[in-house]
Amino acid sequence: MRKSVLAIDVGGTNIKLGLVSPSGHILSRTNLPTTSFIRRKENLIGAVVSASRRIIAENRLNNKDVLGIGIGLPGLVDARHGTVEVLTNIPGWKNVPLKKIIESRLKIPAFVDNDANVVTLGEWRFGAGHGFKNMICITLGTGVGGGLVIDNTLYRGEGFSAGEIGHIPLNETGLKCNCGGYGCLETYIGNQRLLKRARIVFKDNDISLEEISRLASRKNRIALRFWKEVAVHLGNGLAGVVNLLNPRCIVIGGGISNAHQYLFKTIRETLLQRALRTPAGMVKIVKAKLGSDAGLIGAQVLVHDALL
Amino acid sequence: MRKSVLAIDVGGTNIKLGLVSPSGHILSRTNLPTTSFIRRKENLIGAVVSASRRIIAENRLNNKDVLGIGIGLPGLVDARHGTVEVLTNIPGWKNVPLKKIIESRLKIPAFVDNDANVVTLGEWRFGAGHGFKNMICITLGTGVGGGLVIDNTLYRGEGFSAGEIGHIPLNETGLKCNCGGYGCLETYIGNQRLLKRARIVFKDNDISLEEISRLASRKNRIALRFWKEVAVHLGNGLAGVVNLLNPRCIVIGGGISNAHQYLFKTIRETLLQRALRTPAGMVKIVKAKLGSDAGLIGAQVLVHDALL
Repeated sequence: MRKSVLAIDVGGTNIKLGLVSPSGHILSRTNLPTTSFIRRKENLIGAVVSASRRIIAENRLNNKDVLGIGIGLPGLVDARHGTVEVLTNIPGWKNVPLKKIIESRLKIPAFVDNDANVVTLGEWRFGAGHGFKNMICITLGTGVGGGLVIDNTLYRGEGFSAGEIGHIPLNETGLKCNCGGYGCLETYIGNQRLLKRARIVFKDNDISLEEISRLASRKNRIALRFWKEVAVHLGNGLAGVVNLLNPRCIVIGGGISNAHQYLFKTIRETLLQRALRTPAGMVKIVKAKLGSDAGLIGAQVLVHDALL
Repeated sequence: MRKSVLAIDVGGTNIKLGLVSPSGHILSRTNLPTTSFIRRKENLIGAVVSASRRIIAENRLNNKDVLGIGIGLPGLVDARHGTVEVLTNIPGWKNVPLKKIIESRLKIPAFVDNDANVVTLGEWRFGAGHGFKNMICITLGTGVGGGLVIDNTLYRGEGFSAGEIGHIPLNETGLKCNCGGYGCLETYIGNQRLLKRARIVFKDNDISLEEISRLASRKNRIALRFWKEVAVHLGNGLAGVVNLLNPRCIVIGGGISNAHQYLFKTIRETLLQRALRTPAGMVKIVKAKLGSDAGLIGAQVLVHDALL
């Protein structure tokens, strides 16, 4: 019997844990609320370790039945040494040797990586990017994250920060971004910015992005135009990525990708209009397949590719 | 004795041929004027074959003393099959199996690639990018070309068009570019655009870019501001590249890189201001070392890496 992976997906709201089979199926899962442990990293690590022991025991496994532990975290992660350098919205994490800590507590090989990279691994092996040698994955949310598969390998960059598609500038004199830059893609299509714009466009302080998708599905013209503008900005940003990297496939996931029928057509048109003919003509723009399970399923790939 | 490579660098004006040693030294060289053969591709190929035979004979070598032939061309080149798909300023080239043609005429293994890729290989192995695992090379000229070394391999992209740094958009509503896109880096810092701008700024229809560098070296304020604007645009474009790829080194070559004392400082400052802290802090911005020999020296690397 081939061994399963214990997958851990640390997010700003929830920590998901799951047992993932070699074929990418989630056999068992549990959740922890991140905010309960956000004050002290020792508490968060302790809670993850306890939950891991529980999920292993509940599935009547021993530690040696688990191939490894894969952990995705929202921040800068040195995947080679297994060190969390900094987390984006969880304070107190600086150069934490998480791989070492988890291995010493659970006696199972552990691997850590940035969450967008883990999602990319999942979509590449088991999702919408399956079979592509050169593929890019984007997650649309509060932040706009990304990961790059280049020549059949996840490319992490010299300092493990590659793939920051959300911080490609769209305009030289654009708005100041949280990252310190100006006019980044995220300042145009990050959820915060979209909600702000939605409140103005719809003259409604309580409108949600889901509601705008519902309105669009009923052919509401303002909603359709709202999503079209998002898609044009995204297409403009991707034109640079496509010209630079000439990928075969771009997988788009995250919350607003669910407005896909209003997004994908315009993204494709924008690329054909604006990117170079060769790379624009060959790139597939597809919706992510794994949804919110991508982080767990990708953790299986992280461990699998490190060990086998 | 280790064998030399017969290197051929096809440009819009000249075709350079050289015998390049395993250590990257040009042992012998000759030039052909491209324009004499521009009408018919058979004539260009014939001239290259004759000149190759001549250079081999003049150096008292036999075909089997030559490791291989490396050819760089300005256009889209399928480096795997050795096919020239299209050339940028030389008409009549469409899906030309140049590798096969050269091999059948000269009985020496031949390898072809895009010229910017060949320059990148040269700077990476023997020039300013030596020793870097993740490195980007940019050539500034009429066009703004580029090549990417990722995880110690030249990355060509799914359709051999990767590295088009000149066609990263700087502004969504920028000028229409020759490539069909809008606001591409090339529309801001390509030589044509720079000359046009120079004529306005200096109110002089005959001013050259070299003259503006001379003026800058004498602290002429208009000239200094002219180069500073160029550097800010280049830095803004590179901010996206640095955030996306997190390279260790960016090598900048081509004509206007000779204005370097006025360019490089501002490029570095712009990156530190605008790109993410981790990748901006670790990337070196350096001037290319090989000058106009990069195409010949890179052809040695192209052959070497394909055969050895």
